[in-house]
Amino acid sequence: MDALVLTGHVMSLNNVRQVARDGRKVYIDPQVYEALIETRKAIYAMAEKECPIYGFTVGVGWNKDVKVCKTFFEEYNTNLVYAHCVGISPYISDEETRAVMLTRLNTLLANTTGVAPELAKMYADMLNAGIHPLLPERGSVGQADVGCNAFIGLAMIGEGQVRYNGSTMPAGEALRQAGLRPIVLGPKDGLCIVANNGLAAGQGAVTLYELKEFMLMADIVYSMSLEGLGGNTSPLLPGTHKVRPYRFQVETARRITQMIEGSYIYRPTPGKALQDPLSFRGVAQIHGSAWHAIDYTEQLLGIQLNSTDDNPCYLPELENFFSCANYEPLVWVLGFEMLAVALSHVSKSSCLRTIKLSDPDFSGLSRFLTPNPSTICFSTLQKTFAALDSEIRHLSNPSSVDGLPIAGDIEDRHTNAPYAVQRVRKILDTLRYIFAIEMMHAAQALDYRKGLPLGKVTGEAFALVREHLSFYDKDRPITPDIEAAYALIKSRKLLELLE
Amino acid sequence: MDALVLTGHVMSLNNVRQVARDGRKVYIDPQVYEALIETRKAIYAMAEKECPIYGFTVGVGWNKDVKVCKTFFEEYNTNLVYAHCVGISPYISDEETRAVMLTRLNTLLANTTGVAPELAKMYADMLNAGIHPLLPERGSVGQADVGCNAFIGLAMIGEGQVRYNGSTMPAGEALRQAGLRPIVLGPKDGLCIVANNGLAAGQGAVTLYELKEFMLMADIVYSMSLEGLGGNTSPLLPGTHKVRPYRFQVETARRITQMIEGSYIYRPTPGKALQDPLSFRGVAQIHGSAWHAIDYTEQLLGIQLNSTDDNPCYLPELENFFSCANYEPLVWVLGFEMLAVALSHVSKSSCLRTIKLSDPDFSGLSRFLTPNPSTICFSTLQKTFAALDSEIRHLSNPSSVDGLPIAGDIEDRHTNAPYAVQRVRKILDTLRYIFAIEMMHAAQALDYRKGLPLGKVTGEAFALVREHLSFYDKDRPITPDIEAAYALIKSRKLLELLE
Amino acid sequence: MDALVLTGHVMSLNNVRQVARDGRKVYIDPQVYEALIETRKAIYAMAEKECPIYGFTVGVGWNKDVKVCKTFFEEYNTNLVYAHCVGISPYISDEETRAVMLTRLNTLLANTTGVAPELAKMYADMLNAGIHPLLPERGSVGQADVGCNAFIGLAMIGEGQVRYNGSTMPAGEALRQAGLRPIVLGPKDGLCIVANNGLAAGQGAVTLYELKEFMLMADIVYSMSLEGLGGNTSPLLPGTHKVRPYRFQVETARRITQMIEGSYIYRPTPGKALQDPLSFRGVAQIHGSAWHAIDYTEQLLGIQLNSTDDNPCYLPELENFFSCANYEPLVWVLGFEMLAVALSHVSKSSCLRTIKLSDPDFSGLSRFLTPNPSTICFSTLQKTFAALDSEIRHLSNPSSVDGLPIAGDIEDRHTNAPYAVQRVRKILDTLRYIFAIEMMHAAQALDYRKGLPLGKVTGEAFALVREHLSFYDKDRPITPDIEAAYALIKSRKLLELLE
Amino acid sequence: MDALVLTGHVMSLNNVRQVARDGRKVYIDPQVYEALIETRKAIYAMAEKECPIYGFTVGVGWNKDVKVCKTFFEEYNTNLVYAHCVGISPYISDEETRAVMLTRLNTLLANTTGVAPELAKMYADMLNAGIHPLLPERGSVGQADVGCNAFIGLAMIGEGQVRYNGSTMPAGEALRQAGLRPIVLGPKDGLCIVANNGLAAGQGAVTLYELKEFMLMADIVYSMSLEGLGGNTSPLLPGTHKVRPYRFQVETARRITQMIEGSYIYRPTPGKALQDPLSFRGVAQIHGSAWHAIDYTEQLLGIQLNSTDDNPCYLPELENFFSCANYEPLVWVLGFEMLAVALSHVSKSSCLRTIKLSDPDFSGLSRFLTPNPSTICFSTLQKTFAALDSEIRHLSNPSSVDGLPIAGDIEDRHTNAPYAVQRVRKILDTLRYIFAIEMMHAAQALDYRKGLPLGKVTGEAFALVREHLSFYDKDRPITPDIEAAYALIKSRKLLELLE
Repeated sequence: MDALVLTGHVMSLNNVRQVARDGRKVYIDPQVYEALIETRKAIYAMAEKECPIYGFTVGVGWNKDVKVCKTFFEEYNTNLVYAHCVGISPYISDEETRAVMLTRLNTLLANTTGVAPELAKMYADMLNAGIHPLLPERGSVGQADVGCNAFIGLAMIGEGQVRYNGSTMPAGEALRQAGLRPIVLGPKDGLCIVANNGLAAGQGAVTLYELKEFMLMADIVYSMSLEGLGGNTSPLLPGTHKVRPYRFQVETARRITQMIEGSYIYRPTPGKALQDPLSFRGVAQIHGSAWHAIDYTEQLLGIQLNSTDDNPCYLPELENFFSCANYEPLVWVLGFEMLAVALSHVSKSSCLRTIKLSDPDFSGLSRFLTPNPSTICFSTLQKTFAALDSEIRHLSNPSSVDGLPIAGDIEDRHTNAPYAVQRVRKILDTLRYIFAIEMMHAAQALDYRKGLPLGKVTGEAFALVREHLSFYDKDRPITPDIEAAYALIKSRKLLELLE
Repeated sequence: MDALVLTGHVMSLNNVRQVARDGRKVYIDPQVYEALIETRKAIYAMAEKECPIYGFTVGVGWNKDVKVCKTFFEEYNTNLVYAHCVGISPYISDEETRAVMLTRLNTLLANTTGVAPELAKMYADMLNAGIHPLLPERGSVGQADVGCNAFIGLAMIGEGQVRYNGSTMPAGEALRQAGLRPIVLGPKDGLCIVANNGLAAGQGAVTLYELKEFMLMADIVYSMSLEGLGGNTSPLLPGTHKVRPYRFQVETARRITQMIEGSYIYRPTPGKALQDPLSFRGVAQIHGSAWHAIDYTEQLLGIQLNSTDDNPCYLPELENFFSCANYEPLVWVLGFEMLAVALSHVSKSSCLRTIKLSDPDFSGLSRFLTPNPSTICFSTLQKTFAALDSEIRHLSNPSSVDGLPIAGDIEDRHTNAPYAVQRVRKILDTLRYIFAIEMMHAAQALDYRKGLPLGKVTGEAFALVREHLSFYDKDRPITPDIEAAYALIKSRKLLELLE
Repeated sequence: MDALVLTGHVMSLNNVRQVARDGRKVYIDPQVYEALIETRKAIYAMAEKECPIYGFTVGVGWNKDVKVCKTFFEEYNTNLVYAHCVGISPYISDEETRAVMLTRLNTLLANTTGVAPELAKMYADMLNAGIHPLLPERGSVGQADVGCNAFIGLAMIGEGQVRYNGSTMPAGEALRQAGLRPIVLGPKDGLCIVANNGLAAGQGAVTLYELKEFMLMADIVYSMSLEGLGGNTSPLLPGTHKVRPYRFQVETARRITQMIEGSYIYRPTPGKALQDPLSFRGVAQIHGSAWHAIDYTEQLLGIQLNSTDDNPCYLPELENFFSCANYEPLVWVLGFEMLAVALSHVSKSSCLRTIKLSDPDFSGLSRFLTPNPSTICFSTLQKTFAALDSEIRHLSNPSSVDGLPIAGDIEDRHTNAPYAVQRVRKILDTLRYIFAIEMMHAAQALDYRKGLPLGKVTGEAFALVREHLSFYDKDRPITPDIEAAYALIKSRKLLELLE
Repeated sequence: MDALVLTGHVMSLNNVRQVARDGRKVYIDPQVYEALIETRKAIYAMAEKECPIYGFTVGVGWNKDVKVCKTFFEEYNTNLVYAHCVGISPYISDEETRAVMLTRLNTLLANTTGVAPELAKMYADMLNAGIHPLLPERGSVGQADVGCNAFIGLAMIGEGQVRYNGSTMPAGEALRQAGLRPIVLGPKDGLCIVANNGLAAGQGAVTLYELKEFMLMADIVYSMSLEGLGGNTSPLLPGTHKVRPYRFQVETARRITQMIEGSYIYRPTPGKALQDPLSFRGVAQIHGSAWHAIDYTEQLLGIQLNSTDDNPCYLPELENFFSCANYEPLVWVLGFEMLAVALSHVSKSSCLRTIKLSDPDFSGLSRFLTPNPSTICFSTLQKTFAALDSEIRHLSNPSSVDGLPIAGDIEDRHTNAPYAVQRVRKILDTLRYIFAIEMMHAAQALDYRKGLPLGKVTGEAFALVREHLSFYDKDRPITPDIEAAYALIKSRKLLELLE
């Protein structure tokens, strides 16, 4: 892939994925870089005039009445980075760290900060060199993730720890090996590094693109379950969706229809139930609702990824800084709060379907899909997904509004943006287990449907599953199979079937 | 106002408000009515063929294997209405009842149910006559609000209780007085009456239009507080919003700017804080986020209001019924879940501002805005809004995913749609108190700014407030003032200032 | 009943019930009254010395630096009562109001407040005369319920509204009719009236004694269900409880055993399931767990009811006031938080049993207990209890830790004690509906067991139920039956069967 | 230490700590062992008679109608262990694993299971040899933690993975190295291994003893803060507690009083605030409330640790098995639910105190305790504890009632006992960070009180803290200090000061 040209305005989830996960290089648009240089000059001119600018010529937070003398710009900004290194473990993955850095780099290019252009370039250089500061994920109340972002600044001045070339090492050493020089912090630079929602936005972007991939696989697993059950296809008919035109409900129904194209379940079957349980019948609606929530969150996070969250905000046309509240991420944090609830529905529906696959009254197959009465098979496994579903239910409780007024009662509200995102990430990972177990059941059920034609995609999916875990012909420890099924979903191999 | 012509496709929140609150008459589009007649004929033709149709020629729920003999259509459908009268108190308001009936009437016109055309007309007749069945609001798990809706059917056949002309009376009596005849239920009619999300959608529509009205008043109250505090206007500058273009953030900032146009707070003031607390600075963002959540919910509820949620669904082009999951309201229920959290932020921010107005360090005014040291004034009043804010926080917890598999494990999932809506309605009402108290503080603060010019809207708002409650010159019981301020907000008189 | 002699140290739930619900008269122990007089003298002596005493010679809350001049005691204390009238609707019942007043009266007798003895007597006089101030239940953060309690003070000085002899009237008028004179407030009296957890403690006591009564009835309903199902009695055997000696589990099992003594379910029955569903099998454990939580809460609330929660606290032996934190009710509020969760288990178990009673696979009876296939019977009714159970689940979320630092950051924590209690009260009322519906099912099932001997208590209970609602032989609106069953439980008539 | 003699009846938290954490050896009381042998004989006699016994001569769960033929005891029980290996990662610590094994071993000795005596001995042998099976902590709904416990059985038959002598290895290999032979499973043995609440009870015991240790340290940290603030000691006076005799409130006040004995804060100080913020004033009450909740939980968990939770339950006196519900842990799970809320109060109070220590208006010290105006010091650090406190608030939401009916609707309720415990464990670990940060502030404040005498314990504590982290004389990255302070608390060294 070519390097991604950054302008501050074209960031998408796909771009983030390419840079964060696939290691795509980045490159700052030269024209944009020029603009940064111009602004920087204007900033220096202002500094001469000694008007109080938050985080520039005066301190931050409650210390906004403390003056910063010009000759101490480096010392002040270094201290600012130091004093903002307050986050605590656990530390985020390299993929997430890249997303965080990319996110901040891109919004710097919106040119409302007065940042040193070399500092912007340093983000690009470190990304391209693969130098990844160790970033803690706890310690932000979600009005700019200063306590985490500061560790990027620490690495940039050659301090703290980074991951580089597969090992953890001092930042200074990694910069040296990569042929980069530590930066010297000038006025406003400390604030530019820390005062943004980079952690939450970066983790949020990674979580969202992983979630979108997962939801496609969830449709495949459902399709296998529907075939495993021998269920009704009428709830997927285009006509019944056209009359209730929720965009993603319609799309989900269409996608599932394509997955089961050619399946035996379209054949008329005497004795088939007139209607399946709601957890089977309503998947286009349930998954569709989750997609609506994803879409809402993606659109609003998209604006965050492509615009400034700096305060004060420099407006070139007015040649001045203005106090504002652009650090406020509530609008898309609410999206994540909603997503948590939406995914709890996705989870519970999966569990309910798995229960039906185990129940002869619904599936017409053996109890717990056992190959014979003396095998216990999936009986106990129900406890696993039931327990995980309760965890997801618990994680779906909101958190954004909880918090304490701090900083002399000035920072009196919060969003806990990183925690909102991290909860969804945790839900997503747990969902992988839930659907792994549904997939184990669906495959076991399909083994009892041998000889019947399966759908275009589900047939291949069933074969792929059986490459990774075999039919339960007799009791064996089940945990290894769960982990294998989970790994298959995590690997995204099922996605290749959709291409 | 002319009668509203109903087609099944043009319902908006405004329409609902006009019919539900203002008593606008309704009228079924004749062409649409013709289509209902055609479908009804087709249904009767199907009944001859004895193919099993859910809720028509066979029973509902777990009883879907029980046949309904043609000669017993009336008895069966009457029994169905009886057995679905399972909701419990409290009973909803006439305005809400009208919204519920209008909602169902309009979706019947989508012509996917096979309902008796006379039954559709009965909704219109009762609305126009002002006959309002007593509808209980508890007893639905939010996959069609059957246990509430059934009471409409009960009234239509002349049983149960209704409110009419200001009194509660037997339905049969009210119909007689209004010159209407009870209907006779035919095939499928019972299901048409009960099996829809009318309660949640109707209450949801009322809640949403009231919320939108409230949010405009919340901006006015905030604007008064900003003047009361003598705060900064820079966070409202168009430039700082243009660079972070969240639509409703931008609009809110613009609206507030218009409200305070001409205010003294635009004057340069020596000693003014460089930045106000986040609860003041971020209102465009916080209220804007709530508006985004409202917009999301309104759009998705809008589709519900204009399309069928019937199962099975009759498709005229295929001349048959199809089992589906269109009863599933999850997509917009998630909107209400999100709204609950959004409004919790709106509430907490208001409380935090009120605290600042009481604090000399922020306002430069007397402690608790007391007129003199020997008056206690608003000291204790802080407990009231703090307690109410905790209630809102509690109400903001989600509920949609909780539930028990019922109906022989077939109705295995839920949304608790009515409860989701009712929680937001309760939050909204509590918010009125929260902002009433903020308004009391803002007005008291503005009294200390006498002589300074106020904004275009805020000046009038201040005058209006002072018509309803007077300056606290000495201690007096405060509850009557809270109730007066609450009543002023509830009356929507502040809205007139925006016209 | 004789008048209850109050000493400050013998209050129990039973006493509260007798005074609050049954109207028992109260009488202050003369020796205790003497002690109040002695303390009052000491207080006046202190006032001469002008040492600052919170709420006495200086103001309260953030105003604790404002001096109160001796000559203005009445005016200051009247203002204090006025300024603390900040609670809002709804207003609590007379029974609850009596409990609130009794609670405060009794803790005043602990003699740590320096209250005017006449003021203590005024509580007794108003209780005995049946003058009940209108008390709002919202507006306290649960560190003393000042905003509600103040309305008692308002009535005592002859202002505000009270209920008396069945009507609502001005307090002054009621006092006059009852031959009482308004009191004149002296030093510290305002604080004595407002600064205590009377609202939460009083409502808490009422809620607890009602809950204890309900839990006994819940055992009866369960016993009927067990017979309705034809379930196993082995989980009630003393031997299986002796080996796991949780006190209330053991007691519950013993109580239920007595209720079903002589029942047909002790007969050996071929084909009976080896084990019943957990919701049937574990009732001694589930209800027993709730009793443990009740016992914990009752013990800790009992200390509250019998000791001071005043700050500052007057210690006669040291002849001085001391600042303390005895207003803190957290210890028993946590009991209510736990109770909410415990009762959510009680609720869900009831619902699960009702589902089993409707399921032929478990009960061996007809589906939904229908008398014949063409009757829908209790099919839809499942939605009612499922919806109510979700409400209880939602109410069981904690709230005590949520809140805002107020009063100049001095009152920085909360317990929301009244809301904690009110949530349990609401849960309890909803539980009555849940068990009313279980009782309807159990009775319907027992009708199908006609001729078989029922238990000692359950037989009578079944007969009592059938006096209030009849067998479902054909479909009829079900809501009236739910309300009748609810009313029967609310009436506590079932309790008489245990005497 | 001598080996602990196990009888089934003397288990305490202290015993669990000695065995689980300190590696104390265990030894089965010979008389008790004899009783196991007798019971085992009786069991075999029953097996001859072919009466159906759950999990013995018939299957478990929904398979309770499947017969287990005598000649297949080993195969059936091995399959049972296999099929119950359904738990998933993460895996618990060796200390926790030891607690789980000890817990189950002890309850086996209650002699209600019919277990093979050699199997009981195998627990003791593995504990004494230090062979620790890898136990997953997710996958139990808290009605016996079968999916985790099965991995103990797997190791006992020489399969699966264990930790031994510092490495992870196949169980068979570890047994060989330790000179132990894999066991052969006989009738009922599989069920004895899996069907108990060992995971939750074992983790619960570890969590509780760690929590009790922590709470003592929390008192020390508070005492340092009180000195750091220069606060009031009057709320600790025995007299003000005697009048409100909550046992643990009284004890906490007494303990803190001993810690600050001799401190300068007892000196009269002109200008000292009359009353401190509630978060300072109410610590005896807040921590005392947590101790009440701990005591409740410990007492009820204590019964669990010393009695059977087996179903069916063998009663020697009746010479038979009886179906029961002794697997139900709700009673002590509710204790953990309450504890979660109690600790949320403990957390928030700590944060509020730390805020006050940073605020000159309360402490009389420099803003954010900075050594000079140009140092940022602890300004940003407020975000860290605020974020962590929100996490704790989120974790304090209940979970026990959430779940899905499984096993053919027979296992229809849950407690999620392990998750309830794990949430408290997570809260506890986060609390260590919260108090670590309070301790950093207290120590920094005390540095400004140099020369003034500190309390008996607090003086030593301050010195100990300063051994691990130094005064902030200029800005430096703060995270390393947080981690050092956390490690100090985790090390329990502060506890030594209390001995």
